[in-house]
Amino acid sequence: MPQLILLRHGQSQWNLENRFTGWWDVDVTEKGATEAWAAGTLMKAKDIAPDVCFTSVQTRAIKTLNLALEAMGRLWLPVTKDWRLNERHYGGLTGLDKAETAAKHGDEQVKIWRRSFDIPPPPLDAGSAYDLSNDPRYAGIAIPATESLKDTIARVLPYYESTIAPQLKAGKTVLISAHGNSLRALVKHLSGISDADITGLEIPTGQPIVFDLNDDLTARERYYLSER
Amino acid sequence: MPQLILLRHGQSQWNLENRFTGWWDVDVTEKGATEAWAAGTLMKAKDIAPDVCFTSVQTRAIKTLNLALEAMGRLWLPVTKDWRLNERHYGGLTGLDKAETAAKHGDEQVKIWRRSFDIPPPPLDAGSAYDLSNDPRYAGIAIPATESLKDTIARVLPYYESTIAPQLKAGKTVLISAHGNSLRALVKHLSGISDADITGLEIPTGQPIVFDLNDDLTARERYYLSER
Repeated sequence: MPQLILLRHGQSQWNLENRFTGWWDVDVTEKGATEAWAAGTLMKAKDIAPDVCFTSVQTRAIKTLNLALEAMGRLWLPVTKDWRLNERHYGGLTGLDKAETAAKHGDEQVKIWRRSFDIPPPPLDAGSAYDLSNDPRYAGIAIPATESLKDTIARVLPYYESTIAPQLKAGKTVLISAHGNSLRALVKHLSGISDADITGLEIPTGQPIVFDLNDDLTARERYYLSER
Repeated sequence: MPQLILLRHGQSQWNLENRFTGWWDVDVTEKGATEAWAAGTLMKAKDIAPDVCFTSVQTRAIKTLNLALEAMGRLWLPVTKDWRLNERHYGGLTGLDKAETAAKHGDEQVKIWRRSFDIPPPPLDAGSAYDLSNDPRYAGIAIPATESLKDTIARVLPYYESTIAPQLKAGKTVLISAHGNSLRALVKHLSGISDADITGLEIPTGQPIVFDLNDDLTARERYYLSER
């Protein structure tokens, strides 16, 4: 039976400060590192034995994966890192905290960007402190200037279909360490959640979510590993 | 100009205890972790910018790589892990410290195993505490019962030629985090060191060794990065 485990990175410094992070490369906090280790310990205790792993090219997801794998004694597993598993790009909101965003754009507008499925925030200004065009990890990639959740799904799902699904179809157990919105894309797809409902689905940090799948990769069951 | 950087893992618990380790999966010490971080800091300071990385399936080499990459801000690099970069398998010596080995086999015999190019130690007993046949990382692999340095070279070099050399030929900078003897195999090959001399070449832990290569992958120069 193919099994897919989704793990949102442990708390980051900007989770803690309540700032929009998106593609900006913020590290996990000490609490976040502890969450990652605990996720690995839990997977080991529950006999979850991944065969292959996928993550984004963002430090917080990679470190979460490395810490969880170390706690499981499985640091030797193959890991593929790809930008298509990155967090949603928050455009011009990147770096702003809750109060700054509300002051700049108004509470109502912020709620629309946070909760709508297909309305992206304003684009990141060229020359912004958060401009990533010189970051070598994105060389050759058309970096988005902003993304809606719909835009995020539009790059996560093709990657899932082309690269992750074949591993599952081969009967492998797959672990993905990624971000709130890139994981929402996968949960929406596998659990058939509507556009309207998916924006309200919270993915907690450091909590392994397990999908037991049928051979055709439809979901048999989805659950938090901590509840089994 | 292709560039290859070799990094031997930071001090392990059994380096510290002077025990034969080989394929047994021993972690780095705190000193070893510090060495790994320092190696990354040094590479960053000297503008060494790897494009791709290779390592073994052993925790001490993987952690060394992860720590060095984090210190460089390059945790997002692609990393390939392969058993062919593992340490030499020390067979029946695995787990023994210097005194135990001498007591069991005599000083002269130990010197022969340590220093000869093609004489392997006695094989690991089946059912030994260090038997790896149930370790999932080696599923499908013919685990050696013991190896000479020559045997180690015979698995490292084909892997280098088939998988690492093409990256170098494409002009990439390649970082390999591995072990004393798997790195000896590469230094021997690239610097043309004789069978007799290679067994005496010490590879220090946590010290990046740089090969500036010609387009045909012959060595132009080999040096410790700390000396530049």
